[in-house]
Amino acid sequence: EQFQKTGRFDALQCNWKPGMPNKPHIFWDSDIAKWVESAAYILQKGPDERLESICEWVIDQIEKNRTSEGYFNSFYLTVEPQGRWQGRGNHELYCAGHWIEAAVAYYEATGRDRFLHMMEEFARYIQQVFVKEQSASFVTPGHEEIELALYKLYRCTGKTEYRDLSKFFLDNRGVRPREPEAMGIQSHLPVREQKSAKGHAVRAMYLYSAMADIARDCCDQKMQEACEALFQDIVRHKLYITGGIGSSKHGEAFTIPYDLPNKEAYTETCAAIGLIFFSSRLLLSQVDSIYGDVVEQVLYNGFLSGLSLDGKAFFYTNPLELCPEWLEKDVDKPKEDQPWLPWLTQRVKVFGCSCCPPNVTRLLASLGGYQYTYEGDALWVHQYMDSEAVHGGMQIRQETQYPNDGRISITVDGVGRLAFRIPGWCSAYKIFLDGQPWEGEEKRGYVYLRLPPGRHNLELQLDMPCVLVEAHPRVREDAGRVAVRRGPVVYCVESVDNGPMVSEIMLDGKAFWEAEYEETYGMHILHTKGLRRNPDGFGDCLYREMVEDRLPVKITMVPYYAFANRGVSEMQVWLLRA
Amino acid sequence: EQFQKTGRFDALQCNWKPGMPNKPHIFWDSDIAKWVESAAYILQKGPDERLESICEWVIDQIEKNRTSEGYFNSFYLTVEPQGRWQGRGNHELYCAGHWIEAAVAYYEATGRDRFLHMMEEFARYIQQVFVKEQSASFVTPGHEEIELALYKLYRCTGKTEYRDLSKFFLDNRGVRPREPEAMGIQSHLPVREQKSAKGHAVRAMYLYSAMADIARDCCDQKMQEACEALFQDIVRHKLYITGGIGSSKHGEAFTIPYDLPNKEAYTETCAAIGLIFFSSRLLLSQVDSIYGDVVEQVLYNGFLSGLSLDGKAFFYTNPLELCPEWLEKDVDKPKEDQPWLPWLTQRVKVFGCSCCPPNVTRLLASLGGYQYTYEGDALWVHQYMDSEAVHGGMQIRQETQYPNDGRISITVDGVGRLAFRIPGWCSAYKIFLDGQPWEGEEKRGYVYLRLPPGRHNLELQLDMPCVLVEAHPRVREDAGRVAVRRGPVVYCVESVDNGPMVSEIMLDGKAFWEAEYEETYGMHILHTKGLRRNPDGFGDCLYREMVEDRLPVKITMVPYYAFANRGVSEMQVWLLRA
Repeated sequence: EQFQKTGRFDALQCNWKPGMPNKPHIFWDSDIAKWVESAAYILQKGPDERLESICEWVIDQIEKNRTSEGYFNSFYLTVEPQGRWQGRGNHELYCAGHWIEAAVAYYEATGRDRFLHMMEEFARYIQQVFVKEQSASFVTPGHEEIELALYKLYRCTGKTEYRDLSKFFLDNRGVRPREPEAMGIQSHLPVREQKSAKGHAVRAMYLYSAMADIARDCCDQKMQEACEALFQDIVRHKLYITGGIGSSKHGEAFTIPYDLPNKEAYTETCAAIGLIFFSSRLLLSQVDSIYGDVVEQVLYNGFLSGLSLDGKAFFYTNPLELCPEWLEKDVDKPKEDQPWLPWLTQRVKVFGCSCCPPNVTRLLASLGGYQYTYEGDALWVHQYMDSEAVHGGMQIRQETQYPNDGRISITVDGVGRLAFRIPGWCSAYKIFLDGQPWEGEEKRGYVYLRLPPGRHNLELQLDMPCVLVEAHPRVREDAGRVAVRRGPVVYCVESVDNGPMVSEIMLDGKAFWEAEYEETYGMHILHTKGLRRNPDGFGDCLYREMVEDRLPVKITMVPYYAFANRGVSEMQVWLLRA
Repeated sequence: EQFQKTGRFDALQCNWKPGMPNKPHIFWDSDIAKWVESAAYILQKGPDERLESICEWVIDQIEKNRTSEGYFNSFYLTVEPQGRWQGRGNHELYCAGHWIEAAVAYYEATGRDRFLHMMEEFARYIQQVFVKEQSASFVTPGHEEIELALYKLYRCTGKTEYRDLSKFFLDNRGVRPREPEAMGIQSHLPVREQKSAKGHAVRAMYLYSAMADIARDCCDQKMQEACEALFQDIVRHKLYITGGIGSSKHGEAFTIPYDLPNKEAYTETCAAIGLIFFSSRLLLSQVDSIYGDVVEQVLYNGFLSGLSLDGKAFFYTNPLELCPEWLEKDVDKPKEDQPWLPWLTQRVKVFGCSCCPPNVTRLLASLGGYQYTYEGDALWVHQYMDSEAVHGGMQIRQETQYPNDGRISITVDGVGRLAFRIPGWCSAYKIFLDGQPWEGEEKRGYVYLRLPPGRHNLELQLDMPCVLVEAHPRVREDAGRVAVRRGPVVYCVESVDNGPMVSEIMLDGKAFWEAEYEETYGMHILHTKGLRRNPDGFGDCLYREMVEDRLPVKITMVPYYAFANRGVSEMQVWLLRA
């Protein structure tokens, strides 16, 4: 409802005139579109009159205000009518893409096709402008999104012209001399030659997701190889242990391999969401646990951290180290010298640049889509969470406390072949089929079982001890440090539990860990014993000759995703190794 | 001679017209003035015709081009004549101050008073504008410097009006409502109420130095207390182990206590020089080894690092950690997003903003002034270096390899009371007077001896083992780390000696250290044994469960001041503690 206050909904009426408050912004449309898309996912699960009426109102505004060509954009129709298709960096195709995604989701939820048809017209108009007339001032968008949206439109309508238009935007990206070289927006090379993840992380993920769609659908081997190389580059060189990507605030971008600073980590929530999009699309061409592992790693860490435990507030960036004192650092400095998104010690209800919150809601609302895939009588289980699903003649029910607990009970009916992912973090597991110990065939991180007709129960027990994790020696910021992981969940220390200067906490590799269920937040917290230097010995000195003066201390850790939910606190993921 | 190329000398002719190349800059005058001051210190030691003729040429230009009031500024006389005394932040009084310092030094070196008289006229004109007429658009300068220069002019001429003008600028600084509140330029409070070092570090040092002069000379107790509080604040909370100050590139400034990041350390060479100015002035009101200790700490570390071993190239900033890879990070980013002084892995011959190189030369040329103070028949030895000096009836000769070696031989004649500093880093020492073991009275870190008339030899043996130093627990960046110091010299590791990823090197507190004299550079390098993780075990993984896989390695360390003299290399001061 923050969008109401800031005028984002009103803007759709396209009656803004110079001098009025709440001047529409070039990317407000996308915020509303993502909101409608989220609403559609909720409507898929059951009716909700209020949600539906707001959606219909939004669609009315688009219908009323779009041009005869089918064009709609609340900024370019009011603030800058002469600027249509003139600014590559101005999110115009990006907004169009989000409207298309919303229309597809709304059609699939309600069966009503008014919005879908309007967006089909819009897509055909885009095709005319960019392919036939080539009358825009640019060839491909500065912020990718339209590519994956057009692919969705094709999947929904079956009309290949939308897939072809998506492919047009991919094929022409970074092709000299038609486009300026720009690494920040993935235009430094033709997409099939891009093997190293570069530039703005969110844009990269949206582009790579569309590439994965087109590669699979068109059996484009070169495109597929590029996708796999990009994915491997991220996983091997550019991925925080929390699943965050895009380490630098400069351009919200990827930088060089192994450059993963903790306190300066930009790791935008939207980029984490984009990585889920990309990974889950790669999974469709090749079932390999590495893709589901990354989805899970992002989901329970760098994605979920973007949202407060009460679901009402958001982080835009998700650093791995936080110290409230830092907020006092840049007083009395010219504004332009300050980081444009300052360190936040607490999640907030709204951002000026508000891409992340509606992206969080649409991912949460569509989580089910990442859980299973189907083919004939075969069912793949990729993600574990309490849920029920029906697909064709198949019925599936999962009962689990995952990721608090490694026991998962899956009851299926009408499934001939069942496959489920053994997470990469899991080094020991047991399977019981209808109560009997069982061993399935393991392939690329999935266990495969053949089931006789009828109803069956599979019980999966994944060992979930606390483990200390170390980073590659080339990650300079994590040298001499370890992180703590239990199952897929990465933990952190906060000063609210451990007192100030959590930077001093040292973990002992041999210490005993105790996991305790915390009622209020519904998560497991960890207890162990470690060491820290005695701060009393220093007096007024800033430096002294080293002495052995370490005190044993009790350490409490909470899931990283739950940090900053209990007031202002220091936080740290990578701790000293005693 | 870089100043010749960039037009800094030519600018003094004040014949620049719009459209001509090499437009004078608002602080070019100060660069030349510091150069003349350096030349004067060299001329004090003996004649040099070429140096003298260049100085005379500079003085000719000033004489020819100054106004009838005595005003000279090569920028405001040519580029922006209407702007005189209109911009507080425009370094106008700063340049004037440097000209005055140069004139005093030149007079003391040559006895010729033409330049001095010109600058006296300039000072009187400044007094008229700022005190009598109050016709400038501001009350006190945006960049302090004139205050300490006017005090020097008073000491040289004996005319109290210059001291009074200096005091005027101090008394009116930060006094509301006459001045806007600005922490970055020490105008947030009246100077006697400033107890915490804030803002631009170089400006702060120049201001505090003048405050120390005036406090001492005018017996201003409140001012003296402010100086001591500011000094303690720096030493206890804001001083790098290298003697560097001003940790943030944002405003080249002090930040909050204990905020001492290593790779982002700004620590401008000029700020280090300024701290030498401030410390040595405090020493004049109270002989306490803490002041000489800081001078020494700066001198052999963060000051000397500003200069290459061949004396030809300079660092403007002096970080405590350097990795050449970082230079590749910010490609394809808009220029305004990049740090304005990028990481340099090598010293360079000239900077656009060239305050540091001539400041280095003038400090080097005037080093002798920091070595001794005199009072009656008493001599204080503050700094140890091979040298000879004569003062009144006293003759002093120091022979030493310090700081390579802790043995210092001091031969004096005509000295009745001799005092010398026992450095704070030294935990054991021996004294021999005329060959006999001796014990002096120790007071505030100085040993005092009474000497019978005649020639005497004092041999001082300072124990100089390698020690590991740890930082206060509130210095987050140094948690779990140690630095290595031998005598006053802080050491670092470079990849040129130790292979890449020096960030992985772990020091063992109990390891044996060997100091070896290195001929080429005339310094001691250190050898020891430590550990590092085996990088082979990681394969393609970015993270893995922690294993014990540390390899013993030989470690070589060089003095911090000597880093980046043997090609591009990683460098690190604070190393992991095994």
